[in-house]
Amino acid sequence: MQQPSGLRVGICQYAPQVGEPDRNRDLGSKWINSAADQGATLVVLPELASSGYTFESEEEAARCADSAEGKTLNEWAAVCRRRSIYVVCGFAERVDDRRYNAAALLGPEGVLGVYRKAHLFNDEKSFFLPGDTGFPVFKLPFGRIGILICYDLWFPEAARVLTLRGAELLCVPTNWVANFRREAADERGWTMGDYACVGLATQNQIFVAAADRIGEERGVKFVGCSCLVGPDGSMLAGPAPVGEEALLVSPIDLDWARRARRRTPRNDTLADRRPELYAEVSAPVGDSAS
Amino acid sequence: MQQPSGLRVGICQYAPQVGEPDRNRDLGSKWINSAADQGATLVVLPELASSGYTFESEEEAARCADSAEGKTLNEWAAVCRRRSIYVVCGFAERVDDRRYNAAALLGPEGVLGVYRKAHLFNDEKSFFLPGDTGFPVFKLPFGRIGILICYDLWFPEAARVLTLRGAELLCVPTNWVANFRREAADERGWTMGDYACVGLATQNQIFVAAADRIGEERGVKFVGCSCLVGPDGSMLAGPAPVGEEALLVSPIDLDWARRARRRTPRNDTLADRRPELYAEVSAPVGDSAS
Repeated sequence: MQQPSGLRVGICQYAPQVGEPDRNRDLGSKWINSAADQGATLVVLPELASSGYTFESEEEAARCADSAEGKTLNEWAAVCRRRSIYVVCGFAERVDDRRYNAAALLGPEGVLGVYRKAHLFNDEKSFFLPGDTGFPVFKLPFGRIGILICYDLWFPEAARVLTLRGAELLCVPTNWVANFRREAADERGWTMGDYACVGLATQNQIFVAAADRIGEERGVKFVGCSCLVGPDGSMLAGPAPVGEEALLVSPIDLDWARRARRRTPRNDTLADRRPELYAEVSAPVGDSAS
Repeated sequence: MQQPSGLRVGICQYAPQVGEPDRNRDLGSKWINSAADQGATLVVLPELASSGYTFESEEEAARCADSAEGKTLNEWAAVCRRRSIYVVCGFAERVDDRRYNAAALLGPEGVLGVYRKAHLFNDEKSFFLPGDTGFPVFKLPFGRIGILICYDLWFPEAARVLTLRGAELLCVPTNWVANFRREAADERGWTMGDYACVGLATQNQIFVAAADRIGEERGVKFVGCSCLVGPDGSMLAGPAPVGEEALLVSPIDLDWARRARRRTPRNDTLADRRPELYAEVSAPVGDSAS
């Protein structure tokens, strides 16, 4: 393969459909190819892009899940090989009789790694097990990436662990449902997910690339508002429109993440941490005073 | 004293001046009284409101610092007593021959507590010692508050510890200097500090009341953009204008912070944490893979 010269991130916002894995596989391939056509070298697809989100039964969830060696990731990895690109995609993972809300990192060489969602939202608790991978960081030719999925964004510890492990870019497959203060986006077109991404980016001096889905499944509406945020918290691309398909492709320089940590000649935001004061953050439940 | 019936938070945005502690004392009293006139029952003043910020020598810093039992806090506590209110105020604290960038909680009963800034920014490292109080939570008749100061906002662990200890409102005396992507605020009038407050609020389902200063000292410009953010990340008041005096007074219902944690019938954002996955956040420096 050719080493990517200059990273270009592609964020795909579209509507997978629950219960239609064949259609979702074709859709994913189409969007990955479209992003590659526009020069993307790393493409992010939404959460559960292989399966859709709103299962009505465990049987349906089981039928829509597949292993990391299965047909969908195999086909998407083939696109990566043909186009010499990388993909981070949400998928419903089956491992023996267990299921995870997972995301895979694919590259020209195949499946490079899997992250399993640590923090499950609402009815996901009926269909998936909590992730058992922790928060892995993947080293690619252009830099180090971490993966979070949707509700994980509301747990600042997760992005912090990835940052401490050297991640420079967080890829976030997500399915933002109606947010918790308005039905969709605010008057400037941002949903709470966008604010969460900006918060994590500026706290950690890290890029965040969030690919949200749109459409409706069984009465559940998904928002859109996918975004790319820089390590200073600035909105580099997006938020994409509410409820419309969108493809955001942007060049980024991951070295900015390292530079941004030097806030002043006397400040390095990671070296300035006071971990001895943070014991409660990782204390077992019940040890805190709350 | 009368128990406050219904909390009203007052956020004071004005310009203390370095090297003029007498003037700053009078200014603080004036702003606390103005906030009380408008019905505030808890008033937040900026960081280092007693001393100003941009010291040119250690001698000047020493001359501008005072103990928690000193003249400035004494006078401001007297206003609290007269008006039956509470105040969170930044001040340069002297303890024997040590100095801290601190904030005091004052009430009708006097000085109720002190927080000393854990994360020192830039030249603060020449004039102050790192805080040794950890992150205390103060129980008041209307609820539990925590205090963070300016650069602390960029360390998500700090707000998380306060949340785990039961804080419902973060009071943030701050001195936001030109931010790290633009000179002041963006096109909608937000500075990076506002985004940081929204990020912490939505991650922790907590209120954030940030009182920034304005004005210029020895070439350093302070932004303004003080704000009050709700536990869903919504901007309840402000951002106040760039570079102008402002007084934001807003009623808030601290019970909203507790309610906001139940995102769905199946989600409690604190119970959903996975502390066993967060060990690196509080690991001693050097233990992480970074």
